[in-house]
Amino acid sequence: MEFDLIATIRARAATRGDVLLGIGDDAALLRVPPGAALAVTMDTLNAGVHFPDDTAPEDIGWKALAVNLSDLAAMAATPAWCTLSLSLPQADAAWLDRFLDGFLALAALHDVALVGGDTTRGPLSITVTAHGVVVAEHALRRDGARVGDDVWVTGTLGDAAASLAQWRTQTTRDAALRLRLDRPTPRIAAGLALAGVAHACIDVSDGLLADLGHVCAASGVGAEIAVDALPASDALCAAFDRDTRRTFQASGGDDYELCFTAPAGSRDHILVRLGAVDVAASRIGRIVEGDTLSVFDESRKPWISPASGYAHFRD
Amino acid sequence: MEFDLIATIRARAATRGDVLLGIGDDAALLRVPPGAALAVTMDTLNAGVHFPDDTAPEDIGWKALAVNLSDLAAMAATPAWCTLSLSLPQADAAWLDRFLDGFLALAALHDVALVGGDTTRGPLSITVTAHGVVVAEHALRRDGARVGDDVWVTGTLGDAAASLAQWRTQTTRDAALRLRLDRPTPRIAAGLALAGVAHACIDVSDGLLADLGHVCAASGVGAEIAVDALPASDALCAAFDRDTRRTFQASGGDDYELCFTAPAGSRDHILVRLGAVDVAASRIGRIVEGDTLSVFDESRKPWISPASGYAHFRD
Repeated sequence: MEFDLIATIRARAATRGDVLLGIGDDAALLRVPPGAALAVTMDTLNAGVHFPDDTAPEDIGWKALAVNLSDLAAMAATPAWCTLSLSLPQADAAWLDRFLDGFLALAALHDVALVGGDTTRGPLSITVTAHGVVVAEHALRRDGARVGDDVWVTGTLGDAAASLAQWRTQTTRDAALRLRLDRPTPRIAAGLALAGVAHACIDVSDGLLADLGHVCAASGVGAEIAVDALPASDALCAAFDRDTRRTFQASGGDDYELCFTAPAGSRDHILVRLGAVDVAASRIGRIVEGDTLSVFDESRKPWISPASGYAHFRD
Repeated sequence: MEFDLIATIRARAATRGDVLLGIGDDAALLRVPPGAALAVTMDTLNAGVHFPDDTAPEDIGWKALAVNLSDLAAMAATPAWCTLSLSLPQADAAWLDRFLDGFLALAALHDVALVGGDTTRGPLSITVTAHGVVVAEHALRRDGARVGDDVWVTGTLGDAAASLAQWRTQTTRDAALRLRLDRPTPRIAAGLALAGVAHACIDVSDGLLADLGHVCAASGVGAEIAVDALPASDALCAAFDRDTRRTFQASGGDDYELCFTAPAGSRDHILVRLGAVDVAASRIGRIVEGDTLSVFDESRKPWISPASGYAHFRD
């Protein structure tokens, strides 16, 4: 049965001119453009851990690729190829077709060729390795934040966590919030627009504070964040009170926005470049000396979140 | 806890000069040599499916990388980098250390840098993506077999399947057989030695007949195999009768030898090149017209195996 699955995937996968050999051999053969570095990222989604068990196959497929493309976006890399490993409890052609509907729709949006992978029997689990190309000197890293930088974030925060909370409490699920959880938008164009402008960048997958904490640790700096500056969607404001909303915005995972730092002199430049790719961005704080990540409310008092971060391993 | 695991992995992983950015950012940045193609392969091992549940963590680590390096070997690619996604039921530092002992020992043997990946909570599952480099014209593919080619296989066949059978029947496990199951040797040097000589190549992971069948299908040819020409180890001959042994050799999985085809005029050349890297090889048959894979016994009568191939999905 394994080869029926592979045949189905192979028949539906698109290719690109730089794919010398795609699905169907022991390895894919790819042509990396001269002068470019290869960017490689790998993320796994496990049923019941990274998505609710009742998530539609199309959404699982989309999200499995999206979380990887989001990592490439945060490096300012241009996506090129991916491999997919699917572990399924049983070979289910209908499920696979729906999964591929979502996965390949996002791949097509970013001209990503699916060039190989594996299909195995096991509990539902999806691992994707995404490959992109970037001129190494233009890559956005976590370790470039400097004291005095503004801290920015694209789009809005907290929608995915809010939708997950609605699922957990079995309240009516807002469609707009749910779309953010199930169909995150990797900020590829924004990442490319920030190359050469931003000092440091990360995608918000574990939660804003956790991810900004990674930037601070890698850069050897601290940060001050204004919780009232965190951008919220209309849907989030309509569905939750202020305190709950702020917790989702500051600590909820799965937003897949870009959090980046840049010199204050680049503010107009950033808004113009991101505006050109139709992405909003908000200034939410600044990089300071030290190793502390402080969050203030609108009275400049420390803001305390009842929750903190999103860890896949919780004891 | 996730970041404790990543910190452990990061502290132990070696690097290479062509790793511009390794573990710890959103993506790794790698330098592919000019003129070389990038070879990419990805394989998953799930507990209870791809290895017995009581397999030592060191052996799981070794094997998870070995099955991927074996795919690179079959392309005549030189291994360079890998990424690792580990799904663990719980964060277990002792288990991880033992897993890394095996994984990194094999990585060091082949100068492979572990440059990224993911750690998640879930049923025990390991996915590795291995990257190598190869001059595209020298890559060994499945689709190059030609009528009249000899069919060859490196090393010996059937040991891994024999060891698995001993585990399943709870008979005393032969140490030599078990080593072949738990610590397969990716035939990297043999693959490189065959570049420019062999017409087609595949690694024997699903079983010789299944894998040679993939070569035949990709090349549009058939093959005739002499079952008595299949190479067997002394340990296999000592532990099983002839018929059982032949089934393991022809249809057992997890050997990770190379099966390749080459013109008859290259026989001496092949033995010299493989001898130089201390790898034995046996001629086991030839490529013929048609689309049939025939297996004959020593009386030139069709040989019937009670089992056939190894499929991960069995209904």
